Amino acid sequence: MSETEFDIIGRYFRRQPVKRKDVLTGIGDDAAVLRLPVDRELLLCIDTLVADVHFPAGTPAAAIGHKALAVNLSDLAAMGAEAAWATLALTLPEPDPVWLEAFSGGFFALAGRHGVQLVGGDTTRGPLTVTVQAHGFAPQGQALQRTGARPGDRIYVTGTLGDAGLALHLRDAAAAELRIRLDYPEPRLDAGSLLRGLASAVIDISDGLLADLGHLLEDKGLGASLQVDGLPRSRAFIAALQGLDAAPAELYYELPLSGGDDYELCFTVPERCCAEVERRLGGLSCGCTAIGTIEAQPGIRCCMQDGGSYQPAATGYLHFQGGDHD
Amino acid sequence: MSETEFDIIGRYFRRQPVKRKDVLTGIGDDAAVLRLPVDRELLLCIDTLVADVHFPAGTPAAAIGHKALAVNLSDLAAMGAEAAWATLALTLPEPDPVWLEAFSGGFFALAGRHGVQLVGGDTTRGPLTVTVQAHGFAPQGQALQRTGARPGDRIYVTGTLGDAGLALHLRDAAAAELRIRLDYPEPRLDAGSLLRGLASAVIDISDGLLADLGHLLEDKGLGASLQVDGLPRSRAFIAALQGLDAAPAELYYELPLSGGDDYELCFTVPERCCAEVERRLGGLSCGCTAIGTIEAQPGIRCCMQDGGSYQPAATGYLHFQGGDHD
Repeated sequence: MSETEFDIIGRYFRRQPVKRKDVLTGIGDDAAVLRLPVDRELLLCIDTLVADVHFPAGTPAAAIGHKALAVNLSDLAAMGAEAAWATLALTLPEPDPVWLEAFSGGFFALAGRHGVQLVGGDTTRGPLTVTVQAHGFAPQGQALQRTGARPGDRIYVTGTLGDAGLALHLRDAAAAELRIRLDYPEPRLDAGSLLRGLASAVIDISDGLLADLGHLLEDKGLGASLQVDGLPRSRAFIAALQGLDAAPAELYYELPLSGGDDYELCFTVPERCCAEVERRLGGLSCGCTAIGTIEAQPGIRCCMQDGGSYQPAATGYLHFQGGDHD
Repeated sequence: MSETEFDIIGRYFRRQPVKRKDVLTGIGDDAAVLRLPVDRELLLCIDTLVADVHFPAGTPAAAIGHKALAVNLSDLAAMGAEAAWATLALTLPEPDPVWLEAFSGGFFALAGRHGVQLVGGDTTRGPLTVTVQAHGFAPQGQALQRTGARPGDRIYVTGTLGDAGLALHLRDAAAAELRIRLDYPEPRLDAGSLLRGLASAVIDISDGLLADLGHLLEDKGLGASLQVDGLPRSRAFIAALQGLDAAPAELYYELPLSGGDDYELCFTVPERCCAEVERRLGGLSCGCTAIGTIEAQPGIRCCMQDGGSYQPAATGYLHFQGGDHD
């Protein structure tokens, strides 16, 4: 006998680690009923992961569960929000108990670390597609946005760039540390909330640094110069490239610039706030690195420490233009 | 040249009819930023429609856009909420401009009638899947729930039952009036808000009357008796059955009991509140009909006016048990 939609929801998605006091009615009625905070604004974002488009077919179910929530928490991080609730719309070819156990385990492990309660969902039959909506709060008027960058602002990123892109490139040959960066990205919620009142613009890097930095520039037709030697690269990234025979130099530059899926924050800071930003984020394990400067002249100019310029091969990940990192 | 995700969102989903003052940041940043009302609770629900599972492959794009929002607004109606915001996660095989124009038109026409603003979304490539989350408000402590039915409460439904099921059964031979009921269901938001403080339990009928009434009973192990001759049937429904050669009697009973997709409300009312409920909902075009009584004895008993009993053939729509109305 096959399982019903209701059995699945009951079995795998009610054993969650977080019980928030503001959840008056959670999973099980037609809608969740939630108590609202005073003096806070609500932030919400929704993202879909499609099998073979957003993750390779062989991705572990726990990683899919983690990543579906992580990409949304990363959007909240980019707004400087604290995370609160999530909903999950899960479309599955069949209700595989082993897969659901691992998927929900990955989802709830991340939710537990950030105090996020699953408050609603829908389980349907069809090609594997995972949509998560995340909900969070920011103090009134303090949500971080994409549009505040000004010429002279310094450009930063959290953590390291290119790890997830290198894991995708190397596939089964990727070291575990790189694979974890691709499969289990860490949303930078701590960093985002520490940037409130300091950063002039913030975005999370899902499509690659050049593409996402471009979104911070496009609204006002600004430009930027980037120090491509100085982009932060992990030890695992450098070690993996040293072990390759062919074309490591190109990967060394291209992956941090254009590889997606790192889910670090890219943000701009007025000169007067840089010391405070470096002090605050210096206390986090991810840290932050200054990588360039906002300029009035449109376009992104990639510079080398020796004074030369670097011409990137690609500008990031675009859906419907191949559906892959190109 | 193919279109990018960003072009699609910009072109089809920014021309919306509703601009709410509580939307501080809408589509375009990492997350929407929303001002919260005082003395209200937030209600939210998420539902996915999958091609060939939740709607036939030939369904017009405008109907898919309408229905994806309607099924969620119907959940809000069942909670007695007023609708406010929606988000849309749209997975498409390809960015077809004609399809997107019709889809967004159907979505926004319904959103406009209910004052709903689209505040966020995600567009991805993959098999056609539409997930909408709707957000609404109810006065504190007044959201309607599924769990309050008590023995002796009268059972009501809004509108008429079986129309959508008959349209699915007849397919291309269905009259326009039945087809509209299947493709463009009307969420009963007015009825839902009028039931606040009066109804003891409410659910919307998506999976069929027997299945959804069952959800009102299961929590406390209650039962119900239903008057199957007295279920409300539309003129179009009766006319269509009179025109059929075979087995109309079975359809006459089965479709109102077990056909899904009508999106009427099924609700229970304590005897002392019935007159007020009938007065209030009598002023709406959908009206309401008393169809039975909640009883302490578990199970749903279907009765005929002549005193006999009716044994239903099926109990409604279950995902993963065929994926069709069975």
